[in-house]
Amino acid sequence: MPKLWNETIAEHRRTVREATLETTAALVAEHGLASVTMSQIAKETGIGRATLYKYFPDVESILAAWHEGHVSAHLEHLTRIRDRAGTPGERLAAVLQAYADITHERPQHTEIAAVVHRGEHLAHAEQHLNALVRDLITDAAQAGDIRDDVAPAELASYCLHALGAAGSLPSKAAVHRLVAVTLAGLNLSPSTPDAAGGDD
Amino acid sequence: MPKLWNETIAEHRRTVREATLETTAALVAEHGLASVTMSQIAKETGIGRATLYKYFPDVESILAAWHEGHVSAHLEHLTRIRDRAGTPGERLAAVLQAYADITHERPQHTEIAAVVHRGEHLAHAEQHLNALVRDLITDAAQAGDIRDDVAPAELASYCLHALGAAGSLPSKAAVHRLVAVTLAGLNLSPSTPDAAGGDD
Repeated sequence: MPKLWNETIAEHRRTVREATLETTAALVAEHGLASVTMSQIAKETGIGRATLYKYFPDVESILAAWHEGHVSAHLEHLTRIRDRAGTPGERLAAVLQAYADITHERPQHTEIAAVVHRGEHLAHAEQHLNALVRDLITDAAQAGDIRDDVAPAELASYCLHALGAAGSLPSKAAVHRLVAVTLAGLNLSPSTPDAAGGDD
Repeated sequence: MPKLWNETIAEHRRTVREATLETTAALVAEHGLASVTMSQIAKETGIGRATLYKYFPDVESILAAWHEGHVSAHLEHLTRIRDRAGTPGERLAAVLQAYADITHERPQHTEIAAVVHRGEHLAHAEQHLNALVRDLITDAAQAGDIRDDVAPAELASYCLHALGAAGSLPSKAAVHRLVAVTLAGLNLSPSTPDAAGGDD
């Protein structure tokens, strides 16, 4: 791939890193973790084996980095949605809908999950997500958009657990219904009652 | 333990099996899976090592059997609660409260969980639990006790995911609030609105 060498070294490194992450995730998803080797990853990525080892010590660490990138991107996405205009209730509903969509679309590779879910970055990301939803709930409760008889942290945990059901739902429509049911638990009155599917 | 020999052989076997299960679960919870051996389990249970191997081939299979026993007991408990008198809505609320209590009280041994959650019996138990809740929801929706605009299977998945939050809640009171919030998602009107904590 000669084009790479026209770019700066930093860009080149980022490109190699990204290519390695995506190649590895695809190989593990297709063949299973046990049968994927560093040599195979180097070959598929189009880099030398020695070069690959300068980036990552083993397959597990590549998967962890791949997962960390996805989790960070999801958090940024949710943060952008949180910062849009709207009442606290509307912004809460939009963030929960987006979280349910992410959960629904996330590939359910149980093998990859078992490896990457040990990582510390995931604990941080979960805390971040919990805090984001909890603060939105606090604002919405203070604005009178949702119930205020249960602590925001408890309601955040309820929401995130309930929306976990999106992972095994068959359709976007079912995910939409799940979000509506979850919001009903918060006593959120829909802001657009007569506009079906009217989320952002 | 001379008393055992006065009992029938079947009873003796059951006693040894139960003692082995509880001893193993306690040892693994205290010392970690990696450091628990079959010899140690035999010694703590008070049986010979050769006898232990007649019952179980390894530590993992003992843990799996221990977990299977607990899961079966929980399902029987929920089934008994389902079969009590009451409106469909009341029976649904009682079963969901009991499920949340089980989830809350269940020890969160992540190491044991990682071993036993691979077992096929767990998939069966989950199907059983899903069907039990789904059928109660169907009855309650037909009786007009809860919403009927979302498929019962989807609502069952919502309930069981939402109540999963009970595992990390700090108190029984918080679990009670979680159940109330989850039921609000189903639009269940509380049957005893003025009796605080008036479950079953």
